[in-house]
Amino acid sequence: MESHERVKITRILKDSRNILDDDVVTESPLTIFLNGEELVTIICTPENLVELAVGYLYSEGIIHLKEDIISYSVDEKRGVMRLDARIREAPAKGIRLKRFITPGCSFYTTRNTGAREIESKVVLSTIAIRALIHQATVNSILYRETGGVHSAALCAEGKILFLSEDIGRHNAVDKILGRCLLEGISTEDRLLITSGRISSALMAKVINARIPFVISSSAPTAESIRLAKRFGVTLIGFARGQRLNIYSNEWRVKI
Amino acid sequence: MESHERVKITRILKDSRNILDDDVVTESPLTIFLNGEELVTIICTPENLVELAVGYLYSEGIIHLKEDIISYSVDEKRGVMRLDARIREAPAKGIRLKRFITPGCSFYTTRNTGAREIESKVVLSTIAIRALIHQATVNSILYRETGGVHSAALCAEGKILFLSEDIGRHNAVDKILGRCLLEGISTEDRLLITSGRISSALMAKVINARIPFVISSSAPTAESIRLAKRFGVTLIGFARGQRLNIYSNEWRVKI
Repeated sequence: MESHERVKITRILKDSRNILDDDVVTESPLTIFLNGEELVTIICTPENLVELAVGYLYSEGIIHLKEDIISYSVDEKRGVMRLDARIREAPAKGIRLKRFITPGCSFYTTRNTGAREIESKVVLSTIAIRALIHQATVNSILYRETGGVHSAALCAEGKILFLSEDIGRHNAVDKILGRCLLEGISTEDRLLITSGRISSALMAKVINARIPFVISSSAPTAESIRLAKRFGVTLIGFARGQRLNIYSNEWRVKI
Repeated sequence: MESHERVKITRILKDSRNILDDDVVTESPLTIFLNGEELVTIICTPENLVELAVGYLYSEGIIHLKEDIISYSVDEKRGVMRLDARIREAPAKGIRLKRFITPGCSFYTTRNTGAREIESKVVLSTIAIRALIHQATVNSILYRETGGVHSAALCAEGKILFLSEDIGRHNAVDKILGRCLLEGISTEDRLLITSGRISSALMAKVINARIPFVISSSAPTAESIRLAKRFGVTLIGFARGQRLNIYSNEWRVKI
């Protein structure tokens, strides 16, 4: 599997609209089996998988030295690493964290039986989009104080409904979705602005919440683009200054 | 708990060195008990904890509607949320992921019995530091192609020993540590450059690997600064252009 792939995007720069090729990163699962037992699945960039698995085991305190490794084999195509090791002490409960999901369960597309195409007819102008991004930036107080958090903002009709900040980009979005659920606010026909990368896991949240429009100042992954196309989400990345990169369903953006 | 706190930092701007106050974000654990059972601990910014917990349960497909929630109580001080909910279907195995560690096990400071103060005498000039940062930027090929990955580079004696890139900032560092372990390369007296935020989890990796020097173009958290001070790590953040913010053990940096 390649660590990146080429996609067609629509780039808006000021008032011009161009279709061009762009490179985006891929996400790939690596499942580690330790002494025959499934330990963890890490979503990663498919390069240096042996180093990643060994480094993970070292960082988690499971192995300490090269000599602790008895043998290993890696199946790069299937994203599986089998490693036998001498473990001095059983890893504590808290250490055997699942960093991500188990493989093969297609979590991001099918786990939620309600996942179906988003047909929202909402259309936004580039002027409205830029104004909302500006508002979100101005209102990211904790970010301006510390530079150390992500923000997420839910918008409708040219206004930010609410904004949350958190050290975790997933947390920032979850805070928005939780508030919507608690207050009975619909997320349909809304726009979500996030400062974080758009991974497939984040896009799954957007699709489950039936939000038709996601804008990030950062990069999307190839998988998140595929999900956005499949489920009818307009995905904009690298929204910085006068630039907007549209990766899917660009008909919702008018200049 | 506050979402940020004030710390004393040493800021180097070009050739001037100033001590000033700066705000950094805090990390806080939130443990969710669902129907009396411990489900997950999320490391987060301690704001809107109810929204976060509810949004998390919604995002994970555990609850779907407000009506699924029977009752809840939150103990903000202890970072505990207890929630009773009607669950239509038991969450699938893959969904009940542990996003982070269980609370109270002080994972980041004491899990590794070998964690002790780093006494490396390595000193670096700001010129050398900036040159290494420049090299790391130039060599982050996948980042330059896609803008969607983090990089980590291990350096010694004015050179990058190796650099890795990954969609996950933890993965990028684990790839470095894994390679060191496999090739028998010492990480002591080295410098680690990373493009990602420095959380306590990342700092724990650095301390376990006995790396005395960490530089990030992004922000550190209050907890990572505390760990860096306690274990003798020189922590530099916001390394951008002519600026370096030194959060701990600034004696290792000479102008």
